[in-house]
Amino acid sequence: MELISENKVFGGVHKRFKHQSSTNNCEMTFAIFLPKSVNNDTKLPVLYWLSGLTCTDENFMQKAGVFKYASERGLVIVAPDTSPRGEDVADDENGSYDFGLGAGFYLNATQSPYSTHYNMYDYVTNELPKLIESNFLVSTKKSISGHSMGGHGALTIGLRNSLQYESISAFAPISNPTNCPWGIKAFSGYLGDDEASWAQYDATALLRQNTISRQIPIKIDQGADDAFLVDQLKPEALQNAAKNIGYNIEFQLHDGYDHSYFFISSFIEQHIEFHAKHLR
Amino acid sequence: MELISENKVFGGVHKRFKHQSSTNNCEMTFAIFLPKSVNNDTKLPVLYWLSGLTCTDENFMQKAGVFKYASERGLVIVAPDTSPRGEDVADDENGSYDFGLGAGFYLNATQSPYSTHYNMYDYVTNELPKLIESNFLVSTKKSISGHSMGGHGALTIGLRNSLQYESISAFAPISNPTNCPWGIKAFSGYLGDDEASWAQYDATALLRQNTISRQIPIKIDQGADDAFLVDQLKPEALQNAAKNIGYNIEFQLHDGYDHSYFFISSFIEQHIEFHAKHLR
Repeated sequence: MELISENKVFGGVHKRFKHQSSTNNCEMTFAIFLPKSVNNDTKLPVLYWLSGLTCTDENFMQKAGVFKYASERGLVIVAPDTSPRGEDVADDENGSYDFGLGAGFYLNATQSPYSTHYNMYDYVTNELPKLIESNFLVSTKKSISGHSMGGHGALTIGLRNSLQYESISAFAPISNPTNCPWGIKAFSGYLGDDEASWAQYDATALLRQNTISRQIPIKIDQGADDAFLVDQLKPEALQNAAKNIGYNIEFQLHDGYDHSYFFISSFIEQHIEFHAKHLR
Repeated sequence: MELISENKVFGGVHKRFKHQSSTNNCEMTFAIFLPKSVNNDTKLPVLYWLSGLTCTDENFMQKAGVFKYASERGLVIVAPDTSPRGEDVADDENGSYDFGLGAGFYLNATQSPYSTHYNMYDYVTNELPKLIESNFLVSTKKSISGHSMGGHGALTIGLRNSLQYESISAFAPISNPTNCPWGIKAFSGYLGDDEASWAQYDATALLRQNTISRQIPIKIDQGADDAFLVDQLKPEALQNAAKNIGYNIEFQLHDGYDHSYFFISSFIEQHIEFHAKHLR
């Protein structure tokens, strides 16, 4: 790991690192916030944050206003990049924002040329936590959260690994990607035409299959004025699937809020409280 | 005024506008945060925020985490751009970051070709407050704050207009620009070689002249690990000038903090409290 930058914030420290990822076969960047520990012998739990389309590790750390709350609750925050990066990494040939670089969709690609580097599912669930737990004074207790494409990532990763994470939260997640333009484009490109392979990366489909190990607590916030709500996000599909199997999801629709970090920053305190409760 | 964008945040609203500025002879952009009023008949006071080199109206609004505190205290926040903009506006011929576009230094330029557009002092002290007060439900009570070049702006504007503003605060201000590389470059270019004309835009020089109408309350925070502290910011010059005339400045040096918004966000709550106290 190589330190890129370091900033003191709310008494703790925000650091960016790069490292060679064996999962993604390229150099990956991540950011970590380490709150000022009351007791240096206490291993703090970790909240993993997954960002949305076009983002890097920086958006959440700069715009969410999370540090005050993470400091108060003693949570470490880790934010990975949203895709593999580098000159060797295949991008969308049209350079679109919703496929390729910045749009890894937190899955393991099976299609050439993406399968060489696009293994964000394994990176987030396996390589990154091991790296964090072996290099920082953190506990193995962890939760996961994210926004939009990252909300999709948090839901699918958390549901498929419900014994490894304590809780899931999401802002405006892509809740049923096999049934929306962003998801169909991404899954076609990364996973190919066999739609049966798509379901493992669709939170709504996972709930419909009803094979989740345990009802890991889920909190979702959604802006009612989000421009992507109807065509791309489809929270009602997820809610219906949850209802049908008796899975209680804490869902709130907020009048007037959009898809931006202005929305996220308005409710991030409640997400930190939610995760802190389940991480204790 | 033309609305550029609008986002709900912490129950209030963040809006960006552009308008034709008669002071700067170009189109100017500003952002405003209007908290959710408890009572729509109450005219809320305004805090003007001036950003630093290379910034626009967006940096503070996206990165400072101010909305929670401004909402709680009932403060309107207005953030102008840091310079005139547009194809007609003369930029530094070398395209440097510390002169020309994005580096207006909150002064009225006297030198060609800058004097046509670079009148940020008049814009911030006169045109912008009139525009805000005639278009929004705000009181005429106002305070001023800023960061780095914007901290210099807040100090000089507040000191020279101490009867119009209730309080001044600054993060890592350029405190003695006539005596640092950033300031000397800017003042030479905008104001010419007559250094006597520079003092009106130098907070330390203004205190040395001791002609301030009243001791308007001043709060300054500075990171001890700020890379610009010694060569560019020179807070000790301002403190010495204040001490010599018996002017009490609330100054705090913070171990480990740098020049970034990570620093600003860590202490913005205290600045909002400071201004709210003086605006009541």
